[in-house]
Amino acid sequence: MTGRTPLARAKRLFDELLQMSADAPGVTRASFGPIEDAAHAMIRREADALGLETRTDAIGNLYVTLPGTDRDAPVLMTGSHLDSVPHGGNFDGAAGVLAGLVLLERLACGPQPPCDVTLMAIRAEEMIWFPEHYLGSRAAFGLLPQDAPDRVRRSDTKRSLADHMTQAEFDPQAIRDGRPLLDRNSIAAFVEVHIEQGPVLVEAKRPVGIVTAIRGNIRHRFCRIEGETTHAGGVPRQSRRDAVLAGAELAHAMETHWLAVEARGDDMVLTLGEFSTDTALHGITKVPGLVTFTIDVRSQDDAVLNRFEAWVQAQARIIAERRDVRIDLGPFTQAAAAPMDGRLRRGLVAAAQSRGIETLDLPSGGGHDCATFADQGIPSAMLFIRNENGSHNPAEAMDLADFGKACDVLHAWACDHLGVTPRL
Amino acid sequence: MTGRTPLARAKRLFDELLQMSADAPGVTRASFGPIEDAAHAMIRREADALGLETRTDAIGNLYVTLPGTDRDAPVLMTGSHLDSVPHGGNFDGAAGVLAGLVLLERLACGPQPPCDVTLMAIRAEEMIWFPEHYLGSRAAFGLLPQDAPDRVRRSDTKRSLADHMTQAEFDPQAIRDGRPLLDRNSIAAFVEVHIEQGPVLVEAKRPVGIVTAIRGNIRHRFCRIEGETTHAGGVPRQSRRDAVLAGAELAHAMETHWLAVEARGDDMVLTLGEFSTDTALHGITKVPGLVTFTIDVRSQDDAVLNRFEAWVQAQARIIAERRDVRIDLGPFTQAAAAPMDGRLRRGLVAAAQSRGIETLDLPSGGGHDCATFADQGIPSAMLFIRNENGSHNPAEAMDLADFGKACDVLHAWACDHLGVTPRL
Repeated sequence: MTGRTPLARAKRLFDELLQMSADAPGVTRASFGPIEDAAHAMIRREADALGLETRTDAIGNLYVTLPGTDRDAPVLMTGSHLDSVPHGGNFDGAAGVLAGLVLLERLACGPQPPCDVTLMAIRAEEMIWFPEHYLGSRAAFGLLPQDAPDRVRRSDTKRSLADHMTQAEFDPQAIRDGRPLLDRNSIAAFVEVHIEQGPVLVEAKRPVGIVTAIRGNIRHRFCRIEGETTHAGGVPRQSRRDAVLAGAELAHAMETHWLAVEARGDDMVLTLGEFSTDTALHGITKVPGLVTFTIDVRSQDDAVLNRFEAWVQAQARIIAERRDVRIDLGPFTQAAAAPMDGRLRRGLVAAAQSRGIETLDLPSGGGHDCATFADQGIPSAMLFIRNENGSHNPAEAMDLADFGKACDVLHAWACDHLGVTPRL
Repeated sequence: MTGRTPLARAKRLFDELLQMSADAPGVTRASFGPIEDAAHAMIRREADALGLETRTDAIGNLYVTLPGTDRDAPVLMTGSHLDSVPHGGNFDGAAGVLAGLVLLERLACGPQPPCDVTLMAIRAEEMIWFPEHYLGSRAAFGLLPQDAPDRVRRSDTKRSLADHMTQAEFDPQAIRDGRPLLDRNSIAAFVEVHIEQGPVLVEAKRPVGIVTAIRGNIRHRFCRIEGETTHAGGVPRQSRRDAVLAGAELAHAMETHWLAVEARGDDMVLTLGEFSTDTALHGITKVPGLVTFTIDVRSQDDAVLNRFEAWVQAQARIIAERRDVRIDLGPFTQAAAAPMDGRLRRGLVAAAQSRGIETLDLPSGGGHDCATFADQGIPSAMLFIRNENGSHNPAEAMDLADFGKACDVLHAWACDHLGVTPRL
């Protein structure tokens, strides 16, 4: 890899991203924060250097375009996001943006494509900052709730989305107006490259994965079990309203339900990521009167999600009544499952085979902006890159050779799709 | 109740205690802290005013004595502690000390008893400050581990017991030397009056309870389940090492075991007062890699405790192995169960009947200094006073009329025991 190849540029840009966002351990690029801005500016600078067209929409998404011969034809689009979770890794999101830049640089060396090819660097995908699914891509299609800019607050600063957007010199009014910034009919296909967030490709020894579907999810962030805090020495079992034992029963029942769903052959993944007694009030000799917890359930099949939701609400009522505690699973958010386009998937597999790259079909457990495009009826697909140690943590470790293979698959597919002969 | 009766004095002293230790919500009298000192000074001042003998031992326990005709005869002793948990109630411990003062004032009005009658105001019973069972009473009998003054630290200040004792002008060397300050052969009987810490007397509508046994306990303060923190979206079930689901299974199994023990007719109470994912690292979309929790198990029967301990260790190993997580229940403390003296219990019941006061036999789930005396082979018993809302919280609510009934039972029993005719 010399200093002048597209992959060498990508390597240099990964390093530059790492430097600008280092926040030991790992990297932090907050949605609508100055480091995300700097990452966007870096991509724009490189695009300018390559002679590509650039524009930024009202809410901050960056579009880098290689013009086609027919500027009105539906575009081939690729892209991903540039923000990260706090103390996350350098590759989640950024790998897809840099893969898009590699694609444009390679295509620019060949014959002019028949349509525009656009890289979209998307804002605010990581839901930990602003609790809205796929904020940047949904806003681009005018899909965010119109009250989101003023209702939704960043989890750490507690300041509104509108406030953060205005500070970054973008326009929350576009969201309040429900104004689409992207026309779904103008996009022929969307392919997102992303690191795998789990160990499946590592375990299968495949560098690249072809995503079958992006799992939908239902998330309960504010589940509460309220019993009564009493003296562990004084209160007999029959008089107790123990929140931990109620929570343990419910959690164990959820896991048993999950195993039964899997045994039926349905796709489901369940996580209770937070589960805690009240750390300010609890104690070894107190019957615990409060437990808070979260539920995250995912499936490629929305029907499985909806059945789980009905089941867990009923189960909570049964346990609450029997134990004389109050169980409130609170509000929940739902993201629909997004099956990937069959023709695009087959095209990507064929492109990989043409380059001698082994792939694996797998679902995406994590949500991705690509789900927004699929939900709009745009033919959409995802390429996963093998990645050690999961994502959303500093130990995330994509091998640049695997990144190169994903870039090769994307390029080969794009050339097939565009009907052009690859040059670089 | 006029200003000159022993009960009126007690009422005034309860009010004075409340004032000196108010720490909204509730009261705080830290072990070996200045408020505990002030409470001891108040009792000494009242004892002086009543013409009773007083002395304080090397580690701060206060003894108030009504001399008997035979100063060498084994004494009749009563007492309890004056410290409280943080933001606790005013009556836990203090009620027993003031009941002892009422007893001495009443006996002082009658014929001189044949032996000394002594009220012991005990230090440092509440284990939340210094994690040693029955610190003051065990130290009085030379039973504390000799390294305790330098090893044990107060949970909030992190300063050593020796440091706090020295600051309060007591002598930790007595503990380091393992030197008994009390001779168990010099005590004929010990009766502790204490508020009930649960709802049993309230529910049974009895003002006074006769304790059958003080439950022993085994306490694990530092249980840990270590799995692996990974991305909830990326990691399939088979690759997960989920600490919450392992903890939920273990907790639910402990409860099921408890029900089976009860069904066999054995006495057992189980509390998992703390149970928490790592609040610094957890998140709704992370497979939880760490859970910490506590176990407090109590029984009137040490064999039940020991069987539970063996069972839970085995169960933890089974679950850890199956789920590929590490479960470490950590070190544990054990306090032996203390059956109360049958003759004393019968004497207290008879005394109550002679005054027309209805009592109820019940176990003590909480530990009390009386267990130390019983463990020394001293005939020991406890009277519980009906109390609303449990203890160790600001809502603790003993009715002074019930306190008066407990004082009446104690006085009637003491007169029977001493062979003197009650005067007041």
